[in-house]
Formats: sequence, C-alpha cells, structure tokens
Amino acid sequence: MSTTAYPLLETVNDPADLRRLSRPELKRLADELRAFVLDSVSKTGGHLSSNLGTVELTVALHSVFDTPRDRLVWDVGHQTYPHKILTGRRERMGTLRQLGGVSGFPQRAESEYDTFGTAHSSTSISAALGMALAAKRRGDERYSVAIIGDGAMTAGMAFEALNNAGVADCKLLVILNDNDMSISPPVGALNRYLAQLMSGQFYAAAKNVGKTVLRPVPPLLELAKRLEQQAKGMVVPATLFEKFGFNYIGPIDGHDLDSLIPTLENIKELKGPQFLHVVTKKGQGYKLAEADPVAYHGPSRFDPKIGLVKPATPPRQTFTQVFGQWLCDMAAHDERLVGITPAMREGSGMVEFERRFPERYYDVGIAEQHAVTFAAGMACEGVKPVVAIYSTFLQRAYDQLIHDVALQNLPVVFALDRAGLVGADGATHAGAYDIAFVRCVPNLAMACPADERECRQLLSTAFAQDNPVAVRYPRGSGAGVAPLPGLDALPYGKGEIRRTRSGALRPAGLPRIAILAFGTLLYPALEAAEQLDATVANMRWVKPLDTALLLQLATEHDALVTLEEGCIQGGAGSAVLEALAAAEVQCPVLQLGLPDVFIEHGDPAKLLSLQGLDARGIAASVRTRFGAVALSVSERAA
Amino acid sequence: MSTTAYPLLETVNDPADLRRLSRPELKRLADELRAFVLDSVSKTGGHLSSNLGTVELTVALHSVFDTPRDRLVWDVGHQTYPHKILTGRRERMGTLRQLGGVSGFPQRAESEYDTFGTAHSSTSISAALGMALAAKRRGDERYSVAIIGDGAMTAGMAFEALNNAGVADCKLLVILNDNDMSISPPVGALNRYLAQLMSGQFYAAAKNVGKTVLRPVPPLLELAKRLEQQAKGMVVPATLFEKFGFNYIGPIDGHDLDSLIPTLENIKELKGPQFLHVVTKKGQGYKLAEADPVAYHGPSRFDPKIGLVKPATPPRQTFTQVFGQWLCDMAAHDERLVGITPAMREGSGMVEFERRFPERYYDVGIAEQHAVTFAAGMACEGVKPVVAIYSTFLQRAYDQLIHDVALQNLPVVFALDRAGLVGADGATHAGAYDIAFVRCVPNLAMACPADERECRQLLSTAFAQDNPVAVRYPRGSGAGVAPLPGLDALPYGKGEIRRTRSGALRPAGLPRIAILAFGTLLYPALEAAEQLDATVANMRWVKPLDTALLLQLATEHDALVTLEEGCIQGGAGSAVLEALAAAEVQCPVLQLGLPDVFIEHGDPAKLLSLQGLDARGIAASVRTRFGAVALSVSERAA
Repeated sequence: MSTTAYPLLETVNDPADLRRLSRPELKRLADELRAFVLDSVSKTGGHLSSNLGTVELTVALHSVFDTPRDRLVWDVGHQTYPHKILTGRRERMGTLRQLGGVSGFPQRAESEYDTFGTAHSSTSISAALGMALAAKRRGDERYSVAIIGDGAMTAGMAFEALNNAGVADCKLLVILNDNDMSISPPVGALNRYLAQLMSGQFYAAAKNVGKTVLRPVPPLLELAKRLEQQAKGMVVPATLFEKFGFNYIGPIDGHDLDSLIPTLENIKELKGPQFLHVVTKKGQGYKLAEADPVAYHGPSRFDPKIGLVKPATPPRQTFTQVFGQWLCDMAAHDERLVGITPAMREGSGMVEFERRFPERYYDVGIAEQHAVTFAAGMACEGVKPVVAIYSTFLQRAYDQLIHDVALQNLPVVFALDRAGLVGADGATHAGAYDIAFVRCVPNLAMACPADERECRQLLSTAFAQDNPVAVRYPRGSGAGVAPLPGLDALPYGKGEIRRTRSGALRPAGLPRIAILAFGTLLYPALEAAEQLDATVANMRWVKPLDTALLLQLATEHDALVTLEEGCIQGGAGSAVLEALAAAEVQCPVLQLGLPDVFIEHGDPAKLLSLQGLDARGIAASVRTRFGAVALSVSERAA
Repeated sequence: MSTTAYPLLETVNDPADLRRLSRPELKRLADELRAFVLDSVSKTGGHLSSNLGTVELTVALHSVFDTPRDRLVWDVGHQTYPHKILTGRRERMGTLRQLGGVSGFPQRAESEYDTFGTAHSSTSISAALGMALAAKRRGDERYSVAIIGDGAMTAGMAFEALNNAGVADCKLLVILNDNDMSISPPVGALNRYLAQLMSGQFYAAAKNVGKTVLRPVPPLLELAKRLEQQAKGMVVPATLFEKFGFNYIGPIDGHDLDSLIPTLENIKELKGPQFLHVVTKKGQGYKLAEADPVAYHGPSRFDPKIGLVKPATPPRQTFTQVFGQWLCDMAAHDERLVGITPAMREGSGMVEFERRFPERYYDVGIAEQHAVTFAAGMACEGVKPVVAIYSTFLQRAYDQLIHDVALQNLPVVFALDRAGLVGADGATHAGAYDIAFVRCVPNLAMACPADERECRQLLSTAFAQDNPVAVRYPRGSGAGVAPLPGLDALPYGKGEIRRTRSGALRPAGLPRIAILAFGTLLYPALEAAEQLDATVANMRWVKPLDTALLLQLATEHDALVTLEEGCIQGGAGSAVLEALAAAEVQCPVLQLGLPDVFIEHGDPAKLLSLQGLDARGIAASVRTRFGAVALSVSERAA
C-alpha cells in the first residue's frame, strides 16, 4: 500500500500516539483505519463487515481508556482488526490468519492489548468482571470493558454474567455493540426488544449519563414518570439491563466520535456497573458490505472496487452443502424432520432448508445449550430433530447432550460440521475433541464419513436410528465423491475394507499393516497404503465400533495404525485399543491423529501436513514405527 | 402409615381422581399430601424443603391441566414428590432413591406423567418449548408447562429459552416458583429484582390476567401509565419477562389454591407465551424446615417430631470437608487465592471459607459457564482462583474449560467433588465422565487422590502449578486417612507403588499382576491384591500420566489392571493403553471402571459392588480374565 494513503494511521504505532490527536484528527484517523481494514481484508480474506462496524468504537475506546492498563475484552473477537491495527500490528496485517501470522481473534500471547482470548461468543462480560474484581481486590483503579454484540447477548452465559455483575461493585463497563446481526439474521425476543430500545421513542436513553444529555426528554413523559414514581415510592428500572443492576446509557451512534468519546469519558466518572448501548452498522462505509453484511461477514480475497464475484468454475461441493441438500431431501421424504441451528444458518448450510421448509426450521439464537434441550423436548413428542452444530460449539452444550438427549436415549441427529482442523479460524474453531467427549457418553453413537457420498449415507443412517447419533464431517470439501441421490442407510456400526494388502510386493522391513481410518483421512491413508502395501479399512463408526472388523484385521496383520482428524487422547484410536484389550488381543498399534496441543491458524492442508496427517506423513510415521520392529521380526525369523 | 391418616389422598391414584374433587376437598387433599411428604421423607431421607413448598402448586396443576396429555416439566425435579404421590406412585414412595425404587427426580421411564427427565437445573423451559412447538406442528391443543425455581432462573440456559420462547406462538406456560432460594442462599441481580417484584409496590401484578384481578391498581399509577403510553405511543413492557415477550402474571401466593386454581384456569384461555410468578416457601407447613430450609434441603432419615439431630459420634470426615479445610488454610497462607462456587456453598464445603474470607468468596449463582470464565478473567490478573464444582456440573462449562482456561493455560484449580457414583441422586449427579472429557484437553492436568490425606496434598500440588489442574474426589468419606496439617505439594505427575507382590505365595494360575489404581479405589485394590499377590500402584495423576512408573510396572509384570471410578471409555485406563502403545510395549491390560451405561440411584457401596468395583469384584474380574490366560501361558511354558 502507498505510504501516502494512511498518513495519520502510520504515525500511530501505539494507542498512546492516538491519545495525542485532536478530535478532528481522530476522525481522519478513523477514516484511514476503515480504508486500511478494507484494503487489508480484501488482500488476505478474513472478517470484514464486523470490522468496518467497529472502527470508530475502537478509536474512541483507545482514546478514552488508558489501554493496556485498562482492559478491553472483545467478545467473539473477529471485530478486532481495527484494534490490532492500532496496537502495533498494522504492518503484520498482511499475515492475517496465516500460519505464524496475526490471529483473526484476540490472543494473549500476541499482544498485551489482547487481554483475553476470545472466539466463541458471549464470554466477555464474565472475563471482564473477573478482571474488574481482581483489580478491585488489589486496590487498582483500572477499568475493565467488555464489548459484546447483540447476537452474542442471546447466549445464556452473557446473562449469567450480567446477573453476577449487576450486584458487583467494581469498575466494569459493558458495551452492547448493537448492529442487529449475529452471523445469521437476528432472532428472538431480545432482538425485538433491542429494536424497541432503538426505536427512538424510548425515554430511557437520556437517563443517568452525567453531563452529557443525549436527547431531550418529552416533558409529558417526565410528568408521567414522576407521578408514577411518587405513587410507587420507588424508581421503576426502565430497561432490561437496569433490571440486572446496570446503569443503562444509550442508545448512541457508534459511528459518531462526538457521541462516543464524551459519553465514554462521562461513564468513567460513574459508580457501579455501567451498560452502554451503541448502535453500529456492519459493513459501515463500504456500500457493498452494508448492503449484504452476511456475504461480507468473512469473505476470501476480493477486489474492493468490484466486490465479491462468483467464481467462474463452481468450487467443489462442501460437506456443508452435502448436509444442506440431504436435510432438504430427507425433510421432503419424512415430515417428522425438523432442523435446528444456534444462529448458524449460513455456516451450517441451512439457507435452502429454511426457504423450502420455513415452518420446520428453528434458529434459536446463539444458544447451544437451549438448542440441544429444545431438540430433546421435541424428540419426546415424536418429532425427529436434526441439530446442525459445529463440533467446537457442541462443547457449549455438553451437559445437555449427556443428560437431556443421551440419558433419555432420544433420537436426535447431531450434524457436526467443522470436525477436525478448520484452518484460518485456528484453535478455537477446530473440532478436535468431539470424538473423545462424545464416545464416553452411553447411548450416543458417532459416525465419521470418509467422503461426500458417505456423509449423505451416514446422515440417512443416523436419522433411521432410535438413539442419538452424531455425524462428524470437516470444513470444506473432501475427496470429491459425489453423493448418490437416494436416502438409503448404510449398515449401523459397520466399517468396510477399502484396500487389501497384496502381499506380493512387500516393502522392505515392513510387517503386515492395516490402517484403520476414521473419517476423511481415509484418502491419504489409501495413498500411503500404496507405498506400504497396507490394508486400509474405512471404519465409518467411532461408536459403535466395528469390533468384528477390527479383530479380523488384528488377526490378519502384524500391526494396526489408527488414523483420525481428532485428538489422540481418548479418540477413536483409543476405542480401538480398548476393544483389543477387552478382546485380549495383543497387537502393536500406532495412533495417528492430532497431538495434545492447541493447533493455531493456518492453511488446513499445510496444518495437516505439519501434523503428519497427509499421505507422506502417514507413510513416514508407519515406516518410523514399524520399519525397525519389522526388521527385528525378520531378523528373528531369519 | 395408618389408613385413617390420609383418607382423601388414598382415593387419588391418578390425577383424574383429583379432578373430581371440590375446592374444599382439594385443600384437604393438599394438607394430607403435605403430611404424607413429611412422613415419607422422614423415613427414607430425600429432598424435603422444596417438596413441602410445591404441595399446593402440584395439586393446582393436576387439577387445572389435563395431565398427562398436558405436559408438566419440572425444573431440577427434586420438588416432584407431591407430583409422584399424586400420579400413582404413592405406595412406592418408601423405596425412594433406593436401588430399583422410585427416583428422586422425574424419569420418563418411571411414569407417563414424568414428561422429561431433569436433575440439573434450568432445562425446563427449553424442553417445554420443544414440546409445545411439536404439539403445534401436529395441531395438537395440549399445553406445555415449565415449573422453574428462582435459583434455576439465574442459569443462562433459562434465558436462552426465554429469548426463543418469547417470540414463539404456542401453548407454553412458564411458572416461576419463587421461594427466594436455590440450594445456597440466593445471589445476583435477578434475585434482587424478583424481591422488588414481590415487594407489593410493583403495579404489574394486576395486568393481563383475564378475569381475575389480583390486586387493585392505584389510580394515580394508572394515570401516570396512561399518560406515559400516550406520550410514547407504545406500551412499555413492565417486567423483565415481558421484555422477553411473555405475558407476565403475578406474583400470586403459591400456597393458596383459591389464587392458584382460578389463575391457572384463566391462563389457559390466553394466547401466546405466559409467565406466572408464584411465591412459595421452602419447607412450608413444617416449622423446622421453614426456619432452616438449607438444613432440610436434603436430610437423611429423621423423626419429624424432633427434627434433625447431630449424630452423637461425628461421622467420618468427608472429602468435601477436607477440601473446605484446605481452602481456608491455603487462603490464610496465600492471599492470591479466591474461591468460586456456582451456588453450591454447602455442597462444596465452602461455608467456613465464606465466613472467614467473605471478600474472597464468589458465589456467582447457578451459572457454571460464567463461573469458569470469570475464574479465567481473574487468573489473567494474577489472582489464583479455585473453582469448586461437582464433576457432573463441570459438564455445563466444558467449552469455557477448554477455551477460556486451558487454551490460555491459566492457573485455575478445579475442585471436582462428587466424582464417580453418587448414590441416591443417581445417574444425573454421577461424575462418570470427567476423566474422559478432561484428559483430551491440552494443558489441563488431572489428579485423583486416593484418600483424604492425599486429597489435601494434591489440592496443594494443583495450586502450586502454573497451568490449570482438576482434582477429582468422590462424594462422602474415603479410607479415613487423616490429612496432614501442612500445605506441602506432592511431586507433579508422579504416582507411587503401594504394594509390591511378594512372589513368594503365587496364587494358582495367575501371572504377575500389577493393579494401577486411579483414585479411591486404591483401597479395595489393596485388599484384592492380598488375594492375588498383585503389585498395586497409586497412580494419583490421570494427566500427566506417570509413564515411567507405568513402563516399570509393565516390564516387571505379566499383566496390568487399571482401576477407576469413572467411565472406561476414554478414561484413565485408556490413557494407560495409549501410553503403552506409544512406548511400543505389549502387555495385556484389564480395564476396570464404570461400564458404558447410565447407572441409576442406589446405595453407593452396593452400586460399586454391582459394578464389580469392590475388593471381591476386582479379585473376581482379575481371576476371570487372567486365570485362564495364565493357565495357557503355563501350559505353553510346560
């Protein structure tokens, strides 16, 4: 980028630089910042709409608060690009979401300005309250600020935090960044209520803001209110947030520094928990994103002058699309089916389902816990719910999965998208633990399709059961095996042998090996098997495990290799070990999968390769482990 | 009990019988029901205060609603004894919470009147909404009713459900059973707000209740309100619950059938989601319980005429008490320590801690998600939080555990009480899965003390680490090994050998066996080892696993037995299998632990025995598995 395009921005290497600027300069800075964000994201891909929406708010926060001493906790955190740019990371934004580059979310390890790592929604008030009370314990005067979107406010956790914070005496400010959107369009009563607050007819806006009067109060209202208060001898809290013990201020225009800065300055002087309602627009300042903030939520690279263009050759079908198509087809076939999403209509591939079956589509908001128990309630009545949920977000509903679904053995299908590594979104969005945390739960089955065709087949199989079944599949596309049009089920709990070792050509020093692949790594396993002359089984089911197939493979081979895109600890490979131990079978097993560390963002194929989970890595691991063993075996034999 | 004590109650074998009674008869029925509950619980033990509080509400609900066609979903469900007594289970109440007897919670398998199994709080609105929308889909006119306590309302999940339900057009009634209590005394802004609603000065009570006007509206208020509404051209929702889209009715007296029955009848005629605020008293009608509802929350057997008496010989110290004492001692020693509980002060042994260190005690309400992230926020600031949480309730905060604590590698100590089987509370309260779901998470360590002394030592060890550590210990008391007064740590991640096989006396046909005990089952293992002449290791740590000790044991023995009070799938035994596989060591392993089923309520010792986890069972399992193997080994050797 040209050095002349961002003359002011380039002088800001730290928020302290920013605090020296005048109000007019801050406005120019905000304009440059917005242009920089647009230019930067258009080159790297990443989150756009949300970041265009937080430009002024970020400038105002760093201008009024003494960061990093004062703590900013950004909820979700995909709206922190302006924050990152202003806090010393401007020149590294070209590495955004790439391996070793700047994270797309706040990370404590990345900057002292990133006070709390976020990525899943609705944690910010809890974290900021913890920080504020910790500061209070030390007699530290610092402020803790949570910035949370209206979508994130629907998650119960945010209310748990409000309930606790509303009675806490500490320097806490919650800023509701109300842009009338989560990733999917907003739903639920809270959204309706916020719209009411923003309608301009609500009189609370002018209350309690200290020196700044934000808008005039109609005198008749004042009279009514005074009468009312006298009659009752008490003040009726006006807004939801005041009922939770906060001092509510707003709504104010989140793109107007002349509103934001004085209001924040005044708030710093107030006592007790403060709640500021800021109205912003996703995509602000870039017409195309304003018009379609969903499309510009997380675009790939694009030309800002042209905007997003449909690729000339359509990209390969994703697992998400396979699920979406299956959902529509099965819904047409079986009227008991309903589809449930916790605010991920687009990400989970349910746009078409909602269009075709609006009365069978339930977006419950960012509310995974509720989504799962709601599904259980429906299943009690003979409805057959399909809960579409990212693997990583199912962690939010673990107790509900165990108690409300599995313990009652209710036939709910969980379509777990983004199982395994997810690439640019990094550790917080990876579905690394689902096999381990699902397979310890009684009654709950789990399938892991190897490709697109099997994904559809296993979804049909799951739907046909009378017990709960999770089907896990990764982000993006797979081997490219086109789904069959039917809705036939595969055998429940049965795998298959996909390659049988020839025995003819025996790679030097290697024993007879069978690779047991769970999921899409079947394909690199097949590739590796060509070099190793190994048998390859497509296990398909983590639970129930195909023990008969396993024992057959163990009998016919000298060693087994388990392979999964999930954590090794407690994963599918462990299920294999357990089954062998229970069957009293001794057989060397090499477990391949994700190691016991959090894996950061980067290109998915590259990340898999780094973990040794591509064909080359699999072959290398097998040679390293069994080459020597085999040698000693042959030596002994010789 | 005498047949004359409950003349009316004994005619009610089904709610249909009850619906034939006149209002005065219903009142007599309620009195008999209360006496029956008190008598019954005093003989079996169980939940008392909450059940004395729901007598009239239960009578009213079954009288007005057409159960089981209309669905009652009782939140938590420990207040359902009156419901059980009125729905055909009166004569079985003597078997309450005993093996094969009536459950202390609703269970779908137990009765068609138990529409949804509950036990963890705050699921009822989600489930009832699912049922109501399922009914709507079929054109079924049934009503779904959630009955939820004010404590349970603080959990975020309840708000997720309100947010979704408030915009749903279906026959849903939420009854807030407001008794100003969860198990611990109430905390938080919501409680304060409910107290305000109940103060009698709040005008909303009279609104929208159809024919029944519950209290007169002060005319001045009406005027103020009308002025206000005219000025704004809109109705300002009066209560929190109306902001969520519900029609709010109440508060009304939950012990007055003349309020309850007509109000419920009127509500049935109203459209849209309804919210009825009922005020009850825990322990109602039994003076001792009214005076101390916490003590009478879940008493053991007692004489109702005398009430609870302190046992002459103090019972053995529980793990909970060991934790409570340690918490106080460590707090006195290290001022960075804070204690956090999600509304379980009594159950987690924090009464004394709160008394001595009130400013370092945080009861955040029934809000496990918030509790964990709040702890993470504090840990960011150098505070050292100890989160006391039942193993089963940690399931509610799994995502927060992974992302907010483990991913950021923050030093939070989790004191996991009720790990393993819990006895009378049954499957929903058992801590069966924690080992599996914790050990797959990077950075997060887990210790499992074998006895009281070690519990204190391992808590000190956990507290000394810079990474998160969970310490799991069971309900009740253990081997009775008195804790040492100090706060010394044990070596991190290291186990110990507690018994070495003599080799002298070798039980016929058995190979050399080492038992690897994780947790309190060490003691039955030691007992079994006497018969088996086995080595016994006290492994102490599930993660990091003491691999050196494991490999030593594997080298020196012919077979290993892993033992844990937790699920076998993915548990500590699986960690052993993984470590052996990684070390390329072939050694037969027998995994003993909880099987892959939900284990119901019953006497804990009996349940362990049924699972073969007492000394006799362990010895028997080892003989069954290795007796024959050993024989064949000897045969081969011969």
